[in-house]
Amino acid sequence: MPFVLNRIVRFGECDPAGVLYYPVYFDWVHQSMEIWFEEALGVPYAKALSTHGFPSKSATFQYHSPCRVGERIKIFFALSTLRNRSYEIDLKLFGEDGVLRAHGQVVCVCIGVKVGDFAFKPTPIPQSWHEKMAKYLIE
Amino acid sequence: MPFVLNRIVRFGECDPAGVLYYPVYFDWVHQSMEIWFEEALGVPYAKALSTHGFPSKSATFQYHSPCRVGERIKIFFALSTLRNRSYEIDLKLFGEDGVLRAHGQVVCVCIGVKVGDFAFKPTPIPQSWHEKMAKYLIE
Amino acid sequence: MPFVLNRIVRFGECDPAGVLYYPVYFDWVHQSMEIWFEEALGVPYAKALSTHGFPSKSATFQYHSPCRVGERIKIFFALSTLRNRSYEIDLKLFGEDGVLRAHGQVVCVCIGVKVGDFAFKPTPIPQSWHEKMAKYLIE
Amino acid sequence: MPFVLNRIVRFGECDPAGVLYYPVYFDWVHQSMEIWFEEALGVPYAKALSTHGFPSKSATFQYHSPCRVGERIKIFFALSTLRNRSYEIDLKLFGEDGVLRAHGQVVCVCIGVKVGDFAFKPTPIPQSWHEKMAKYLIE
Repeated sequence: MPFVLNRIVRFGECDPAGVLYYPVYFDWVHQSMEIWFEEALGVPYAKALSTHGFPSKSATFQYHSPCRVGERIKIFFALSTLRNRSYEIDLKLFGEDGVLRAHGQVVCVCIGVKVGDFAFKPTPIPQSWHEKMAKYLIE
Repeated sequence: MPFVLNRIVRFGECDPAGVLYYPVYFDWVHQSMEIWFEEALGVPYAKALSTHGFPSKSATFQYHSPCRVGERIKIFFALSTLRNRSYEIDLKLFGEDGVLRAHGQVVCVCIGVKVGDFAFKPTPIPQSWHEKMAKYLIE
Repeated sequence: MPFVLNRIVRFGECDPAGVLYYPVYFDWVHQSMEIWFEEALGVPYAKALSTHGFPSKSATFQYHSPCRVGERIKIFFALSTLRNRSYEIDLKLFGEDGVLRAHGQVVCVCIGVKVGDFAFKPTPIPQSWHEKMAKYLIE
Repeated sequence: MPFVLNRIVRFGECDPAGVLYYPVYFDWVHQSMEIWFEEALGVPYAKALSTHGFPSKSATFQYHSPCRVGERIKIFFALSTLRNRSYEIDLKLFGEDGVLRAHGQVVCVCIGVKVGDFAFKPTPIPQSWHEKMAKYLIE
């Protein structure tokens, strides 16, 4: 069961070709993750950040067809892997025509945070979050 | 009557001080304008862009107190000026505590667009849009 | 005496109109300030950040003509005001044709920083930095 | 033989963890490519854009250790693949300590452009550019 988001491609997110600038897709992954924390896991992301961080270990996108200014994009957010200290996000973007525009995978590692100090040392994902995350695992 | 939007400060919009990076406020103005075109004027911004563009002539922000990661911000979007070929956006950002965080003004000029070619020559705002815009004028 | 920088307008900094997206000018101010700290004041900005921060109190740009993808821009960085706890940056951007493209003013306040914690309380600019800054004051 | 660039991590490129925000690495790839066109291939990127575009087909980064604000990063830009209509960029980022911070691969497809209109149809890389590109191929 994926977490679904809707988003419109904004003018400032596009490049001179009039399409979503390719690094911005990765920003969409992070923003989707923040919304997923809040809406699907019930944990406002800023609250999660007071104790944990989720830096990326790797990030990949396959671009199939461009997303143009003003297009309404449907985002399917799911997890392709869930481990004790990390998870892999699987993000699919579809146009209104139902065509897959891009498909991304981002591995995030759970780290500890102490009063604004990000340790960058892997630490287990809190159990209560892990349980909720498991609902978004895809086969 | 202002147009009201709600927005959460995203991780990637913030700088190492943990607050909204100050150039991003201007991106928020443009994104708010795009939503205003669609929801308040009834014109999807991408459709407007097929014939007209709205580059900025000037842009200003006064920053009163920082917007932190994860904060819910209420945006009041209005026009402080409306002329034949331009308008000035007045944008106020409030925190959940009701405190004014920042106040911006951006003058946008209406220009013509021909098949992806932005002319950068001022042209009158279409009458039907102008009439709807007038509802958002503040004294 | 202004501090002069040269910069090329990058593809990803431009919008679908093929010109520098207007919020990016403000990012250029900050990047220019970082280079000015290092090259003109002799203080690597990251080192300055270990004790002080310089958030913006206000920021303004007047846009005269667009900066297009690939254009070489000459930046004149100077201070229009220098106080004990703040300074106002005056930034002028010129094209290779010598024409003024945009003119900005950004007021930065000096604040204290303790181990990654930005206090957002104004504090005097260190004397040795202040003296070097004074050389970039314009009438 | 890689093309080498030096770059300092800027304040506005970093997130609240004080490190380079992970989507920004992809922007660095594009900016490096633009400089490579100009300095290594002898073709100003804006001039290349008047006839051709180079959108990404896929993009990947492996993040080994974070790049902090103010760090001087050495970028090794090379091609891991060079075909008639596409090439794969291989980008390695090293800290001043010589440690690999991140390693990326981005496949760019050559497309035609007509007066600002990006066709998004693969077309052969011009021969004179292709020959110069071949010098940056790694085994």
